[in-house]
Amino acid sequence: MREVAIVAAGMTRFGELWQTSLRDLFVDAATEALNAAGVDRLDAIFVGSMASGQFVGQEHIGPLCADHLGMAGVAAMRVESACASGGMALRAGFAEVASGLSDLVLVAGVEKMNDGADATAVLATAADQETEAYQGVTFPGLYAMIARAHMETYGTTEEELAAVAVKSHRHGALNPKAQFGRVVDLQSVMTSTLVADPLRLLHCSPVTDGAAAVLLCPLRDAKRFTDRPVKLIGSGVATGAMALADRADPAFLDAVQLSAERAYRMAAIGPGDVHVAEVHDCFSIAEICCIEALGLVERGHGRHAAPSGETALGGRVPVNTSGGLKAKGHPVGATGVAQVIEVFEQLRGEAGDRQVADARFGLTQNMGGSGASSVVHILERV
Amino acid sequence: MREVAIVAAGMTRFGELWQTSLRDLFVDAATEALNAAGVDRLDAIFVGSMASGQFVGQEHIGPLCADHLGMAGVAAMRVESACASGGMALRAGFAEVASGLSDLVLVAGVEKMNDGADATAVLATAADQETEAYQGVTFPGLYAMIARAHMETYGTTEEELAAVAVKSHRHGALNPKAQFGRVVDLQSVMTSTLVADPLRLLHCSPVTDGAAAVLLCPLRDAKRFTDRPVKLIGSGVATGAMALADRADPAFLDAVQLSAERAYRMAAIGPGDVHVAEVHDCFSIAEICCIEALGLVERGHGRHAAPSGETALGGRVPVNTSGGLKAKGHPVGATGVAQVIEVFEQLRGEAGDRQVADARFGLTQNMGGSGASSVVHILERV
Repeated sequence: MREVAIVAAGMTRFGELWQTSLRDLFVDAATEALNAAGVDRLDAIFVGSMASGQFVGQEHIGPLCADHLGMAGVAAMRVESACASGGMALRAGFAEVASGLSDLVLVAGVEKMNDGADATAVLATAADQETEAYQGVTFPGLYAMIARAHMETYGTTEEELAAVAVKSHRHGALNPKAQFGRVVDLQSVMTSTLVADPLRLLHCSPVTDGAAAVLLCPLRDAKRFTDRPVKLIGSGVATGAMALADRADPAFLDAVQLSAERAYRMAAIGPGDVHVAEVHDCFSIAEICCIEALGLVERGHGRHAAPSGETALGGRVPVNTSGGLKAKGHPVGATGVAQVIEVFEQLRGEAGDRQVADARFGLTQNMGGSGASSVVHILERV
Repeated sequence: MREVAIVAAGMTRFGELWQTSLRDLFVDAATEALNAAGVDRLDAIFVGSMASGQFVGQEHIGPLCADHLGMAGVAAMRVESACASGGMALRAGFAEVASGLSDLVLVAGVEKMNDGADATAVLATAADQETEAYQGVTFPGLYAMIARAHMETYGTTEEELAAVAVKSHRHGALNPKAQFGRVVDLQSVMTSTLVADPLRLLHCSPVTDGAAAVLLCPLRDAKRFTDRPVKLIGSGVATGAMALADRADPAFLDAVQLSAERAYRMAAIGPGDVHVAEVHDCFSIAEICCIEALGLVERGHGRHAAPSGETALGGRVPVNTSGGLKAKGHPVGATGVAQVIEVFEQLRGEAGDRQVADARFGLTQNMGGSGASSVVHILERV
């Protein structure tokens, strides 16, 4: 298996991008990455998108993206796993290069959510249609149930949930590509509109348009494209029970844990070695559950991480320095790739005001639905 | 790059399967494959589906399939490229095994088209939404334009189109899993209802439910699972201009040609070495164009292949012995995998009444939209 490097990245601003279509979002992100590497050709494109068909009436975005980029002919396909589509696209692109099938692969993610569709209804199709969505539940509802279970099991409080959002916004205010550039305080979060008890508006990631792209090649070729390649040393994918009601413990994300174990094993490191992490905070409770499942904090102790500063910039293990899904935004299929870009920049010392000093190992964790799919990647500074 | 084998296969009947849901279609096909191999575990599942979200309100079918199979935990993702989803899932599964990332991978395809959605409208989302679908064109319309261009360029006649359908049905009548078990004659095809001039009802593949699955492993492990493994010796993927109006020649499928060149190069064989082929006859004209682009016949001479018997069972290069998409059925995401199963069985001598004598090299070609994406695989008897 060949060693694989990430050598360039590009992403659009994340936000309500009313002027920009799905195909243009992709081209903007892809072009930024290709220009950074100084390349004008590719062997393959893997693009993650959860629901381009439902959102903008466009399936088959693989060839659409290749063509609109001016590269009709290049191999392309779309990969999907709900909100984990971007991370799964990276896994597929990684295998394509590691196998020797391709030498220059663009992995991208794109979602155009603001174009008239009912975002909540579309997102609900990531749940079990027959036992969950058809019955009327939506994602805020599912995560509200996860939050309630976590609160009852471990004593997690609404303030502790709010502290995650406050941290996300503090980080996001330092990220020029983030959807939200403003800081919020605990009081604002705690008094924001109730969406699905106990989750309030400011506990919930927004509806966002955006695209992100990274360029992969064999490690041995990396120096052609950049002085500071980043090595992909671990990749782990796992699934869990589709429906929340079928999970052994609704307050624990077992698929996240399993995907992390597989990635740590491949990377030959453990959670204690991780210097910076981007995790899937689709809702504040999700960050708490994810850091527990990733082993970054002890199970049941995730509630203390944000209030104590452990997971803030300057803390023991900074989590979501990008602002996370909450403040950076969550264009569903693009998120997994954007997470990789944040860690890529951190490991290259290019994260500006968000820089974690001397970051050598970084981790990304991207999740689908209420935790039915999860993909973890581990990157190392070369 | 490790050598990869296909060691087992399973598929549902293709047809209007009103009693069977998407998740059950998958499990039926997957179980048949797993039982044939005698395995009850997997490393990963790659499932192709064009539009599960639009058809049955269910994205995120990777974990759904793993879970419903009783294998929650197993890595899973969905791959999409419109009607080429199944073939692309095979490419992704092939890379996963070839790279060394996994040792036992199920590649499946599934589509549940009969569940209330407007199939024609959903399928149209494989075209360019903005310049094609939004303007009102549908797939019969796009392929009618391709047919008209081919007729004007090469003199292809309606009878020659009809001969393809007659051949498909003759083969399909020998396939117990085919949607249509009846033979049709030239006259019936020529007088069937006009759908989009010059394409008539019996020139068009049907709307179908179904699932198909194959099991992949490293060649060195294959004998654990079967006495007659089949080797995956070539894989080629290509895209073309998304919109038909942007193709250099609307009567020629350039993405098909490019995907074939890439596969032939990897396999180190040429079109003249192919003993049996499954090609993407979504409409009769598509078979004619595909066999030209694959180099199985000379460009412009595709019109003669069915009437002359060249591509019939017993002919020089039997094409679509399964009955093709026309007679076997076309559950969009499943088709690419079902094509592989036909060739797999042919190379193992298990094709019964459809057996091509002494088939050593087989080819599958799976296409998306009006030819914007194409994936070719070449298999060799071990």
